[in-house]
Amino acid sequence: MTDQHNLDVAVVGATGAVGAELLRCLERRGFPVGRLKPLASARSAGRTVEFRGAPLAVEALSSDSFAGVDLAFFAASNAVSRAYAPLAVAEGCRVVDNSSAYRLEPDAPLVVPEVNGEALAGRPALVANPNCVAAISVMALAPIHRRNPIQRVIGSTYQAASGAGAAAMDELKAATAAALAGETFEPQVLPHPYGFNLFSHNTAIDPATGYNGEETKVMAELRKILGAPDLRISFTCIRVPVPRAHSMALTVECERPLAPEDVEAWMAEAAGMRLVNDAAANRYPMPIEASGRDEVLVGRIRRDLSDPSGRSVSLFLSGDQLLKGAALNAVQIAEALIA
Amino acid sequence: MTDQHNLDVAVVGATGAVGAELLRCLERRGFPVGRLKPLASARSAGRTVEFRGAPLAVEALSSDSFAGVDLAFFAASNAVSRAYAPLAVAEGCRVVDNSSAYRLEPDAPLVVPEVNGEALAGRPALVANPNCVAAISVMALAPIHRRNPIQRVIGSTYQAASGAGAAAMDELKAATAAALAGETFEPQVLPHPYGFNLFSHNTAIDPATGYNGEETKVMAELRKILGAPDLRISFTCIRVPVPRAHSMALTVECERPLAPEDVEAWMAEAAGMRLVNDAAANRYPMPIEASGRDEVLVGRIRRDLSDPSGRSVSLFLSGDQLLKGAALNAVQIAEALIA
Repeated sequence: MTDQHNLDVAVVGATGAVGAELLRCLERRGFPVGRLKPLASARSAGRTVEFRGAPLAVEALSSDSFAGVDLAFFAASNAVSRAYAPLAVAEGCRVVDNSSAYRLEPDAPLVVPEVNGEALAGRPALVANPNCVAAISVMALAPIHRRNPIQRVIGSTYQAASGAGAAAMDELKAATAAALAGETFEPQVLPHPYGFNLFSHNTAIDPATGYNGEETKVMAELRKILGAPDLRISFTCIRVPVPRAHSMALTVECERPLAPEDVEAWMAEAAGMRLVNDAAANRYPMPIEASGRDEVLVGRIRRDLSDPSGRSVSLFLSGDQLLKGAALNAVQIAEALIA
Repeated sequence: MTDQHNLDVAVVGATGAVGAELLRCLERRGFPVGRLKPLASARSAGRTVEFRGAPLAVEALSSDSFAGVDLAFFAASNAVSRAYAPLAVAEGCRVVDNSSAYRLEPDAPLVVPEVNGEALAGRPALVANPNCVAAISVMALAPIHRRNPIQRVIGSTYQAASGAGAAAMDELKAATAAALAGETFEPQVLPHPYGFNLFSHNTAIDPATGYNGEETKVMAELRKILGAPDLRISFTCIRVPVPRAHSMALTVECERPLAPEDVEAWMAEAAGMRLVNDAAANRYPMPIEASGRDEVLVGRIRRDLSDPSGRSVSLFLSGDQLLKGAALNAVQIAEALIA
């Protein structure tokens, strides 16, 4: 029996990289879980996952999975979210969806709680969790945008393996071990050899624009989260041989001139951000330090020397792709929904 | 005895990563070397390097090293170039200097032969070889700048270990092997752990601007090579866990609107450039393919969607840091000097 203050919580995609982090975030943040129901494809059913020290059998996702469930996290494919999230909602279950299926639908709030948590006030039935690059970058953009509206963003990313799932994280290790041993490696998960290599993000290029799917998502989602439909944005998304934290170099043009020192102060006081900006020690955000950490690291805050108007600054971020880029943000959304 | 058509050539820093590539470039390009004189610090003297299949003893660099030498490549520190390049020039030896000691001196041409080879017409006694990021990026910028003057460049780099020397390349391997084995690793060469990690470039930050030494060099050198003293430039230089090819994302604003298709055509016909721009196969420049290759790879050529004027394009490059970024460009300079 579920305690009346606790919730029946389902995690769809419980055996994936994001699913595993969802379980850890629910545990360590003391989310009021009564019963935890791990769901996955029939292929993974019967495997076990651990929650609060006890093994739980993974159940095969079906149209009956959501009866009596209060809250479901979806961390699987767009197709799975499209097929099953409406069924869950119809059962009265609240959904936090990590896929991109609903992110741009006008009815679905797309939320980073520190930025636009007010979108959760009406306790919507389905909330979309943003793309990882959008979630991490908006954490740094929002504190600027609130003080001095951003007009243009140019971003280059240094994206980790985890964005392509647990299998890509394993492939990074295997490809690197092969490269160190001087052996050839045939990629199975990603389209190119990953050992000591980097490549343009492995999503399809839109022939109309030349931008890939990742870049297109980031640009559209940033506009929606910031409520700035006319914001001019260009991203270049690159996959680098790093396990689980995304980094990004951003150049941000605002409406009025701004001082890098002020931006530093805004970052230092922003919830969920950690300033790592030690020029004397040449110490700035690094994925190795962002990994496993809830905060997004920010540094290299300086005037953009290519804009003499003084309205542009550049900065560098690292944030854990599986935490603020996925599971942590989803659990924060759920916390706000049940508050 | 040296053949009268052949030259006595010294390589200062012959035991380093760039020195080794200089020897290979001189060999494979059939540079008219009569005698090859490998020079290094007293510490490395007595070691041997191979040239044209024969071992050559490395001599300790001294003030007598350049007597009778026709041409010297300097691939050591700024201090070595400052101390010994003037002595070499005084002996009537031509110098191609890979250090940054003379790059911004008005009397010293700073040359990428495909871009500003005309600066070699007067057969100057000392020619500076540019910073690796400047050399690689200017290869893509110049074909645009010639047709439609560039007004602004925003660049983010993905820089390889080799730019920090052979010891850094070894440290990348050792740090990565340790990370794969789950062992801790104490960095010796670079300031931060390099295994599956990336970090802001390890040159000192200028407190006046917030830019590091690498970024400052790239910005100043690009202006000099392009002969565009007012060009507005901002770079973010990041070291990534890749052995020897630098990649970079560039956003380029021109005087007038330009079409990505035209830029593609300009790149395809530019000497020393190779277009790798296959959207259907999601195949773009990668360090693994740029490594060991003379050409700079360029792709992801597209309109910068953040500039509605149509005057900006974005592109992505990979180029071998030790070749076009150092040794190859130096040998090309020497070829022009003796032509």
